[in-house]
Formats: sequence, C-alpha cells, structure tokens
Amino acid sequence: MTDFVAVNEVGPRDGLQNQRVAVDLAGKLRLIDALVDAGLRSIEATSFVSPKAVPQMADADVLFPRLPARSTVAYSALVPNARGLERAAAAGVGEVALVLSATETMNRKNINLGLDQAVDVCVETLKSARALGIRTKAYLAVAFECPFEGPTPAERVMALGERMLEAGAGEIVVADTIGAAAPSAVAALFRRCMAAWRGTPVSAHFHDTRAMAIANAWAALEQGVRKFDASIGGLGGCPFAPGAAGNLATEDLVLMLEQCGYHTGVDVGRLRRAAAIAGELVGHPVGGRSSAWLAAQERRAAG
Amino acid sequence: MTDFVAVNEVGPRDGLQNQRVAVDLAGKLRLIDALVDAGLRSIEATSFVSPKAVPQMADADVLFPRLPARSTVAYSALVPNARGLERAAAAGVGEVALVLSATETMNRKNINLGLDQAVDVCVETLKSARALGIRTKAYLAVAFECPFEGPTPAERVMALGERMLEAGAGEIVVADTIGAAAPSAVAALFRRCMAAWRGTPVSAHFHDTRAMAIANAWAALEQGVRKFDASIGGLGGCPFAPGAAGNLATEDLVLMLEQCGYHTGVDVGRLRRAAAIAGELVGHPVGGRSSAWLAAQERRAAG
Repeated sequence: MTDFVAVNEVGPRDGLQNQRVAVDLAGKLRLIDALVDAGLRSIEATSFVSPKAVPQMADADVLFPRLPARSTVAYSALVPNARGLERAAAAGVGEVALVLSATETMNRKNINLGLDQAVDVCVETLKSARALGIRTKAYLAVAFECPFEGPTPAERVMALGERMLEAGAGEIVVADTIGAAAPSAVAALFRRCMAAWRGTPVSAHFHDTRAMAIANAWAALEQGVRKFDASIGGLGGCPFAPGAAGNLATEDLVLMLEQCGYHTGVDVGRLRRAAAIAGELVGHPVGGRSSAWLAAQERRAAG
Repeated sequence: MTDFVAVNEVGPRDGLQNQRVAVDLAGKLRLIDALVDAGLRSIEATSFVSPKAVPQMADADVLFPRLPARSTVAYSALVPNARGLERAAAAGVGEVALVLSATETMNRKNINLGLDQAVDVCVETLKSARALGIRTKAYLAVAFECPFEGPTPAERVMALGERMLEAGAGEIVVADTIGAAAPSAVAALFRRCMAAWRGTPVSAHFHDTRAMAIANAWAALEQGVRKFDASIGGLGGCPFAPGAAGNLATEDLVLMLEQCGYHTGVDVGRLRRAAAIAGELVGHPVGGRSSAWLAAQERRAAG
C-alpha cells in the first residue's frame, strides 16, 4: 500500500475555532459523525486550550468521550501545555498535537512566550505525554513565513524539528499557518525534512490564502509526503493573516489525490454532505474550490 | 534570463467567447489596453471564426487593426481554417493559433469534422500561414481527457503534435480544455513533450474546473514549461464541461510564478484593474482565486 495517502481532518478544531459562532456540542458531534462516515480515519477533534482564549473549544472535556467510537478512526486533540495535556489525558485522548511557532514574534503574539520558552513548554509537554503513553505530534507553525518577521529561515525550522524529535514527538507537521508559501519553497523545505527525518512521519498543513494550497500539496507529495492536514469545506483561517482564505479543503485534496492514483479511503460525495452540515453549523455555505464542479457531477448523476 | 516565464493572455478570446453578453469593440479595446498596461506581452486578441457560430468574436476584422500598438506586445488570433486565415491576414495578424482536438468525437461535436479531416484542415492552414509569413502555433485540445471519450491516449497527443510540427507549427500548446487533468498526468505528458520537442516552444493551457489549474501549472513548470496561457479574472469555460470554472486566472498564475522566483514582467496590482474592467464588461464580478487576499493587500497598502 505505498500509494496510500493519509488525510488528517482538522475542520472540527482548526476550522471551527476560527468561526464567529461557537458551534454547540451536538453540532460538533454531528459534523464529526459525517466526517467519519465519509471515510476519514484521522480527525483532530478539538483543542484543550483556555476556554477564555478560545471559547469555541470550551467543551473539549465533554466532547472527547462522546466522539463516535470506531476501531478504525484515530482522534487527536491539540494541547498547548501541561495543563492542557492533563485535561486531554483525563478525557481519554490517545494522541496530542503540540504547536510550536518557528519565530520569536509569533510566539509572543500568540502565547505571550519567547521562542526559547515555547520550545521548553513543548519539550516538557511532549515528555509528559510520552510518560502517559499518549502518542504525540509536533506542529512547526509559520514554517515558511511569519506575518511579523517575514520568511522563516529553513535552518531554524530544521533545528526546531530536531528538538521536537529529541523530546519524543512521534510525527512532525510542517505548517504554512498563514498560507504564504509557494510550491518552490514547499518543495525545497520538504526535500530537507524528508531527507533529515527518514524514520519519522512528516506531514504537511497548508492554508489557501494565496490560492496555492493545492499546488503546495502536490509539491509536498512529490517530495514523498504521504500525510496531509485538510479542513472540510476549507473552513479555517488565521487571525493574523488579513484576507486569509481557510485551510486546504478536504474535498479538493481528496479529489486531487484520488485522481493522481493515490488511495485515501475517503468518499468525496460524502465529504460534500459533511461540508453541507459544516455550512449549516457556521451559518454560511462552505465548500472547497471544486464545489461547483462536484455539485454539477451530482446533478448529472441524479439524472 | 532563464528564469523568465511568458504569460499568454487569452481572456479577450477564450474568456469573452464563453460569455452570454457580447462585449462591444470599445469594451474589448479598453480591456486589452489594461492588459497591455499590466505588462502582458503576448495576447490572444480574438478569433476569426464564423460570426454565426461565435457572435462574440464577429468584430475580429475591425478589432485587430485597432489594437494598441506597442513594439513590445505580440498579438495573436485563433483561426479555424483557410477562410479564417485569409481574414486574419487581411487584418494584419502576425501570429495565428490553430486548434486541433485530440479525439474523434470532440472534433465532430465542435467543428463537424472527423479527426483525420481536422488534421488535414490544420496542416493545410499551417502551411498557408507559413507561406504568408505568419507565425503559427497549434493547440492540442482535450489533450488529457475528452468529455465524450474519456482519457486521451498520450500516444495520440504526441503523434498529433508531430503532425503539426511537420506542417510548420512554430509552437505547440498542450491544452486541458475541460479542466480534467490532475498534476500527475500533467507531469507525465509534459515530460514526454519536452523530451520529444526540444527545439520547439511548448506551452500549457489549463482550466480550473476541478480546482487543480494552479497545481497543474506548477507540475508543468517543473517539467521545464516556460510559457502558459491564462485568462484575466479566470474568465472562460467550456460549453461541453458542466460546472466548469474558467481558465487559470492570470492573477493566480503570475502571483505563483513571481513568488517562486520567476520573472513575468506582469504587475499583479494592474492585473486587478484589468479584472475589474473585465467584470464591468461581462456584467458580473470576475477574479482569480487569490482575489480576496490581493484585495486585502491593496487595502493594507492604501492604509
């Protein structure tokens, strides 16, 4: 199965946390149920952050135990620190994601810590998670460009990745958090990552701000990346990127992967149903760039 | 200047011919003026086809002599046959484009000729153009997939390209006319084309139906393609592709190329002005996928 590509759905977390409306617990469970039904096997369900900072995720502790249980589906949750990890462990989370921004200013603006302190928090939390038997992955955020500092040096991204691996991270996610990367930079950085971290799963997280997310996904795929984050209907965004479109849409990614001959196990038609639910929940229609075409296909199939 | 990538603007032809409204002569000249002002140096201005079949292009004979004269801008026009070539020559056209669909059925539906007959018409017209000292290029349409016959065999595309080159075509344009290609297929076909036709300019024409146009452009670029068709604001479409989005938008292409370190000579801000004019002319807003972000950048720059 070398031609399998894993899709990690981040809509319930990265998507919903950027919405004005706070979707309620029943709504989130309905969306996640539809995502599972579409064949997604890896879902970032929520985030154990401060309910004051991110009220949209305040129900993490009650959400996690109610997720639709499937032996084939692995759920993860974001945790910012030891306190979040503690809550996640209590809720029964099997895999946690840590986010380390690769620049000083992004860390200060985002979590009010310097880069070195942020590294320490991640290292500590990764070690604690490991001690608890919880799987881990580390995001390297603003890995290509920072909205405050401009282009991120690749050297630093590599060094931070090394630190996370030394601390026990089971996977590295290289993230274009603000959607500023072009495929040339994506190819160059992932070439280095894939060479340096051969034994470790390396995945890619793209935003579509400059309409290059799908090109970036292809560029990463060509470097051997076989796991991608995506968000149903393209839900998402970044508070620090004005005019930002959302994440790479799951529909668009799956459509491209399947058409390129990779298996994802995900059904695009069912993803469309999940996108419709997401649109209901957030109060406006959502959908990937390929929505108009997918809708036309459905109409045609319906006769 | 190995890092220059040429952008051939096809909005005035491929874009406008698919619109419900027929834009008048003054409107077309205004749009083309804005495109020239944005730095485009290669523009497909019109098409010398039957005014009955394509009323939007009925003014080709009067349009061409009135195009804004610039020593740096090369205009081309599409001609379907000897009659079109005759009109184009009379109007002073310096470069003509012939379109050869790569499948039997597409030719029958589109021009009511079989593939062999279509080849003959193209060969004859290319030879006549050459005898008149007019530069030529040959489009290989539905080069990846035909809406009637499914996937197009690469062997046939290569063979048809050879025929066009033997007949004197100065350039081959490999076209995903209905926007059905994925980057894997794009990489594979252009790899062959670039190897087989080393001495000849080979360019790429993509539609964004399945939201992969920009990924396809990157895939072609990686195979060494250094000339791309694009349409201002993504204007375009194909009558045989339900739900089809338009052509690859010039703004999106230029944004990616420049960000990848290639020079295009085209100014994205001015392209936005041309897109605004195109929107006025066709009666609805048009713009590439990156429009929201570009607009936010402009607002920020304006203070």
